[in-house]
Amino acid sequence: MVGLAETSSLQSEERRRFLRKGAALAGATVASAAGIAPAVAQRLEVPASNKEMGRPIEQESYGLPSKFEAQVKRRRSDVLVNRQNWSDWSMTPLQDQLGIVTPNGLFFERHHAGIPDIDPAQHQLVIHGMVRQPLKFSMSDLVRYPAVSPFHFLECSGNGLTDWTKAASTTVQQSHGLLSCAQWTGVPVAALLDEAGIDPTAKWVLFEGADGAAHARSIPIEKVMADALLVYGQNGERLRPEQGYPLRLFIPGWEGNVSVKWLRRIKLSDQPWNLRSETARYTDPMPDGKWRQFSFVMECKSVITRPSGGMKLAGRGVQEIEGFAWSGNGSIRAVDVTVDGGRNWREARLEGPVLDKCLTRFRCPWDWDGGPAKIASRAVDSTGYVQPTVLEIAEKRALVGFVQHHNGIFPWSISAAGEVKNAVA
Amino acid sequence: MVGLAETSSLQSEERRRFLRKGAALAGATVASAAGIAPAVAQRLEVPASNKEMGRPIEQESYGLPSKFEAQVKRRRSDVLVNRQNWSDWSMTPLQDQLGIVTPNGLFFERHHAGIPDIDPAQHQLVIHGMVRQPLKFSMSDLVRYPAVSPFHFLECSGNGLTDWTKAASTTVQQSHGLLSCAQWTGVPVAALLDEAGIDPTAKWVLFEGADGAAHARSIPIEKVMADALLVYGQNGERLRPEQGYPLRLFIPGWEGNVSVKWLRRIKLSDQPWNLRSETARYTDPMPDGKWRQFSFVMECKSVITRPSGGMKLAGRGVQEIEGFAWSGNGSIRAVDVTVDGGRNWREARLEGPVLDKCLTRFRCPWDWDGGPAKIASRAVDSTGYVQPTVLEIAEKRALVGFVQHHNGIFPWSISAAGEVKNAVA
Repeated sequence: MVGLAETSSLQSEERRRFLRKGAALAGATVASAAGIAPAVAQRLEVPASNKEMGRPIEQESYGLPSKFEAQVKRRRSDVLVNRQNWSDWSMTPLQDQLGIVTPNGLFFERHHAGIPDIDPAQHQLVIHGMVRQPLKFSMSDLVRYPAVSPFHFLECSGNGLTDWTKAASTTVQQSHGLLSCAQWTGVPVAALLDEAGIDPTAKWVLFEGADGAAHARSIPIEKVMADALLVYGQNGERLRPEQGYPLRLFIPGWEGNVSVKWLRRIKLSDQPWNLRSETARYTDPMPDGKWRQFSFVMECKSVITRPSGGMKLAGRGVQEIEGFAWSGNGSIRAVDVTVDGGRNWREARLEGPVLDKCLTRFRCPWDWDGGPAKIASRAVDSTGYVQPTVLEIAEKRALVGFVQHHNGIFPWSISAAGEVKNAVA
Repeated sequence: MVGLAETSSLQSEERRRFLRKGAALAGATVASAAGIAPAVAQRLEVPASNKEMGRPIEQESYGLPSKFEAQVKRRRSDVLVNRQNWSDWSMTPLQDQLGIVTPNGLFFERHHAGIPDIDPAQHQLVIHGMVRQPLKFSMSDLVRYPAVSPFHFLECSGNGLTDWTKAASTTVQQSHGLLSCAQWTGVPVAALLDEAGIDPTAKWVLFEGADGAAHARSIPIEKVMADALLVYGQNGERLRPEQGYPLRLFIPGWEGNVSVKWLRRIKLSDQPWNLRSETARYTDPMPDGKWRQFSFVMECKSVITRPSGGMKLAGRGVQEIEGFAWSGNGSIRAVDVTVDGGRNWREARLEGPVLDKCLTRFRCPWDWDGGPAKIASRAVDSTGYVQPTVLEIAEKRALVGFVQHHNGIFPWSISAAGEVKNAVA
């Protein structure tokens, strides 16, 4: 172990060695590959933390972030200000997220009647309706079934609705933060429905929560049997209360509100329930004046998270543009990036693992010349679908009222001063 | 949305429908595929949480686990009790972990002088020694470099040392909990060394921490250039203080202590430093009385986490045996499971994604007949290496003193009462 005294002697030795070797290298200029000017190490300062004992270890603990990261929080909307705080939402700080896994403490929230505090020892799940044998499960029953643990994004259908045609949001947390990603652990719903015995004429499945709103949705049985999960785990631990503890539904790739939290009831029928959440809410206005019902899938989308709104570039030279791409219809095949408002595009690097219905991080180096720029990303998924512009979406849907399912290309502007702003117009 | 009154009417309707349909299905017996006896839903009770508003949403927050999960904590050893708590460790509750990602709050710890509380705005990293140009980086410099975000396990070389030849640990947290897994975000060390200009005769690289112990290790330059990372992110957010905030080294697949935390200095040389951590510690006794130096790689290993020590089986019938397998030399090719003390083995299912130098979860159904059993797992990695028995390890190394690098097959016994115990003997 290098103690402090030893460090000093190593420093002296290294200075001597560097001086000796320096002769041979004199005059060599340092080309910084990344264009990030590193300072020369004139001398090695020993920091205060090397000279004292740190915080002792605890007998048992559940750790928390550094106090220096206190600004990294999920936040309520500052664009659509709600008058109460039971039916509300908070948004993930995508500008601060690293990798593809959203920390559970920062995972976006959407509640219709606040967060219940359910004792897992008391919680029960019932399967009934058009089944041969209604069944009731405790949590300790459910965790005995064979489970799977896929990584999937979750996105609210309303993500981006404040910024269709005008720049309302300041940051990517506000414009796109109803989006998160996790490793989900749970039991395929299909396994339990098979056990209950499905009536062959059953076509729709109701999922209802144990929250104060009894939030519920009708889901086509084909999707339920394909990949719906009864989830009790998120990112290695049990669900957090705000994510449906102790049990939620998870429907990969579909709008977040169908993944019913605090799940207590599954019922089979031959038709959908046409609940308020399926008529007054979560439908889309069309150009002919009709409304599209059951628009479940979250289509392919992407956004640049760095640089993004509210940031300031440190200076001209090489930047790394990065962001997320995702698709409810599969995996991400490619992401293109523009720095000139869409005149030219070039392909970004996708960071692995690239997984099905999961956030994929893209990165693209950019040598900023210091002039004004307009940056955006455009994703292509494994079906060949290309993320559209808002104009293209407007040809197929009416952008009136409280419009959901915004998967349009999203631009940021960069001024000569390096200030990054929402460039929707 | 299904309100409370509506729920009741749905219940009545469904009971009528079930009675009508029941006639056709009368006499059908329910075969439970999983052998887990589900109760019949006699009536649907509406839980209290459906009748009240939950906890309101917060303006900004960093969420925490449910109060009902308070027992899930990382814990200090109860086998090797330390007299002080600066140079100590805490262990991950593997029996409670789901998926492959260990939550940051439960990630195992190992500190030599407690946890420093470093301000990232003040932190600096220096590269010096046998380089053309010494360099100094701030954290804001470092995060501008192209980063990667691989998933990798981290394991302490001492993991399992209490249980070589006798059963000392009660739980898998105590026997194997110096093991965790995360998605790490950082910059390849190679990129910065290339920028500094590597002297062609440099062979070893020193990494030193800014903690009170100035913990340091010498690493061969080939490994550094291959995949060593300067990590600032873990599981989607900045490192936690106890994991090296704001910057640590990460050496994929190698013993945890080489991944120096609170990293402040990188120095190149033509030979290793032979630090105390490389002579008095982290060496292995061999049968010929000599000691093996620089045993970096964590070889292929696995352990059953459910059922594991301290658990009690709910009853005979189908159980799911599950656990983790990992290898510092590659990915996991297969895991075999025995339930009869090693006489017979059968192949478990690997849960995807199966990634390089990463925890892989295996699952294997088992129809327990209610008699005494002895269960264990045996992993094979992508190089073809098979996890050895302790007897096989003892042929190559001397199991005397404080023996590290225990990757032997680990057994649990199950009594007729269903009690699971450490079966090392």
